[in-house]
Amino acid sequence: MESSRRTVRIGLAGVGVVGQGLVRFLEAQPDFAPAGGRAVITGVSAKDRSRPRQVSLDGFAWFDDPVALALSDDNDVFVELIGGSEGPARLAVEAALGRGKSVITANKALLANHGAELAALAERTGAALLFEAAVMGGTPAVKMLREGLVGDAVTRVAGILNGTCNFILSDMETTERSFADVLADAQAEGFAEADPTTDIGGFDAGHKIALLGALAFGAAPNFAGVEVVGIDQIELLDIRLARDLGFRIKLIAEAYKVGDLASVSVAPALVPLAHPLAQAGGVLNALFIEGQRIGRIFLQGPGAGAGPTAAAVAADIADLMTGAVRPVFQRPARDLTPLQPADPALRRTAVYIRLMVADRPGVIAAVTDALARAGLSIDSFLQRSVQNTGLVPIVLTTQVASEDAIREAVGHIAALDAVVEPPRTIRIANI
Amino acid sequence: MESSRRTVRIGLAGVGVVGQGLVRFLEAQPDFAPAGGRAVITGVSAKDRSRPRQVSLDGFAWFDDPVALALSDDNDVFVELIGGSEGPARLAVEAALGRGKSVITANKALLANHGAELAALAERTGAALLFEAAVMGGTPAVKMLREGLVGDAVTRVAGILNGTCNFILSDMETTERSFADVLADAQAEGFAEADPTTDIGGFDAGHKIALLGALAFGAAPNFAGVEVVGIDQIELLDIRLARDLGFRIKLIAEAYKVGDLASVSVAPALVPLAHPLAQAGGVLNALFIEGQRIGRIFLQGPGAGAGPTAAAVAADIADLMTGAVRPVFQRPARDLTPLQPADPALRRTAVYIRLMVADRPGVIAAVTDALARAGLSIDSFLQRSVQNTGLVPIVLTTQVASEDAIREAVGHIAALDAVVEPPRTIRIANI
Repeated sequence: MESSRRTVRIGLAGVGVVGQGLVRFLEAQPDFAPAGGRAVITGVSAKDRSRPRQVSLDGFAWFDDPVALALSDDNDVFVELIGGSEGPARLAVEAALGRGKSVITANKALLANHGAELAALAERTGAALLFEAAVMGGTPAVKMLREGLVGDAVTRVAGILNGTCNFILSDMETTERSFADVLADAQAEGFAEADPTTDIGGFDAGHKIALLGALAFGAAPNFAGVEVVGIDQIELLDIRLARDLGFRIKLIAEAYKVGDLASVSVAPALVPLAHPLAQAGGVLNALFIEGQRIGRIFLQGPGAGAGPTAAAVAADIADLMTGAVRPVFQRPARDLTPLQPADPALRRTAVYIRLMVADRPGVIAAVTDALARAGLSIDSFLQRSVQNTGLVPIVLTTQVASEDAIREAVGHIAALDAVVEPPRTIRIANI
Repeated sequence: MESSRRTVRIGLAGVGVVGQGLVRFLEAQPDFAPAGGRAVITGVSAKDRSRPRQVSLDGFAWFDDPVALALSDDNDVFVELIGGSEGPARLAVEAALGRGKSVITANKALLANHGAELAALAERTGAALLFEAAVMGGTPAVKMLREGLVGDAVTRVAGILNGTCNFILSDMETTERSFADVLADAQAEGFAEADPTTDIGGFDAGHKIALLGALAFGAAPNFAGVEVVGIDQIELLDIRLARDLGFRIKLIAEAYKVGDLASVSVAPALVPLAHPLAQAGGVLNALFIEGQRIGRIFLQGPGAGAGPTAAAVAADIADLMTGAVRPVFQRPARDLTPLQPADPALRRTAVYIRLMVADRPGVIAAVTDALARAGLSIDSFLQRSVQNTGLVPIVLTTQVASEDAIREAVGHIAALDAVVEPPRTIRIANI
């Protein structure tokens, strides 16, 4: 409170949708009364100066090179909204931290891949490195894990962290269209990128769960240790069959401790229809946090968008004003070790298996026999009528078993003559 | 980070369920690594020293008088878990703040009634006053409003803030028993207090929404301006009829701006069955936060209990260690004015009206005529079969209208000969 109306000068690198949101935000509301300061943008950098934008950049010093902006004495805080784990974003963040300038970033790819080194650099120079906007947009999940639940031992975080995937899966179900059709529409409407790999491949959610896992367990983010499966193999048929069984397919990001190791993954999973994660449709993000003392906390909000994400950057600016800086990933950087992945083969899960079989006698007996040989118990079984391809969809859900046993069973089934496509398996979420 | 392992000495007043939770907590985990310090309890005070407890108080200095504990130099931070808006809790908190000692409290009644004076006192002496544990237990709603959403203009907070009421309403529906039966059981099992007025009368939720409204809108809490209706008039019949109409009855606490004024209320309301607030059963608390930029955020977690509440106190201890102290209610105390209540008569809402009528012709025509005279449009209408009392329950829901118009219509209806009980009205939530 003693820092009477200190003005923080912001250098903004990256003036896309979120960057423009921040410009509008600080123009409308430069005063951060609760934090006792104000913030103004003084310099900007972007790839293309002349690109049409909804805000004017005329009042700000222009930098062709974000590294020059990061090194400039004309700003006190460097806000990085360029994106990407390498290249200009990384160089500029390193430059700012290297000279002791605090950095606010929405760049999950950068932090998921280089978070520990950047944390060490920030600590060495006394700079802060804040990233509320990197996960769940304006929904303060990072602050919740870093500060709000500091009194607890968090045991698991699990939820929906990619709005594009959630929108596509929701839209496939609502409009009964194929993945390819819905994706094409989403791209046309700007909900999905021209190159959608980062989103639909699960990598964006993987970056985010690497960060949340690091915060939850006080470890270095370890994106290389995250199991990543995207949604591009999800067919409308599976969405329909899952619904017939009382489930909805969601892209679930999850991190939990397994002794000293951690299981960190992103993969499609079946969620019971009445479950809050199944109810989170469209571009919503949603997260369960489980702790030894707090029990289960559920948090849901818009995961992206100019307004929410700019608000998250603003919350970080306010934290800088109050000087409330903690270690980037809960521990001093020298104590950070990467989360070591638990053996995926030992992971235990129930699973949905969908087969396309030829319409002939004895198939069901052969399939159930194959499951029994791998030690898998069936929980439910559903056979649909013959399709116009002459094939019959069979779907079954199993009891909980190891991924190894599931793989063995699926191998047996795939080897059956009557099974004409590789079986499709999707986990059943245990959240 | 520079405050290498500073030890914070805690004076703990009130050693009930939550206090014992805190003792266990700090014994198990005195180190707050992310905040760079440790915390130990040095002195305690409680009404009855010899009362059987699950933790030993032998290692702590004993104070008969919490004010003496608050004034003692043997502790640096005063944790108030006594409760009550007056008496020893208030005296002790004032004593601690008066001498510049920071206070952490779970006491919503105290803050809802005297928050502005206490904030002014804290500001004058340079002490901090933190109260994460006062609302939603271990779910960090206070931090979210105070810090996480500081970058936004919050327009509404609304949710379920009293676990006891939520448990009773859920249990009435599940077990099909009367309010009185369920309350008696809840008291026997310790879910409800021997004197349950604070909970079932809506006052506890009223205290909490007064605090959340103050944080959301940067104002002094104004409990006197909160409209409070409890759940003691809710009958099983209404729960059943509401469900037949597709709703669940919840005790909804809500605060929203009406121009420069604010509508702050606690009252039972019908919530659509599929709505997240309808899905929050048992002792869960749940909260929607709406902001101009962030859209809608939803937060849910256990609202009480020793573990979660002690974790919330611990999060406040960590914030004290990092020195991350902001104004108690978002603005310097001199700028705080109480939220001025909007005229309740102008509030607009849809409403559920339940009548018990004599089984005779012409009743429905008379009821619909009475509504029409007050300008109310009917949304749905349901007549149940004659009960063994010879009476017929009629339930209808209206379109949105002013509370004034609703009151007028209910007056007309109550005056009808065939209507043998005062009509029961319950709002339909618009969340």
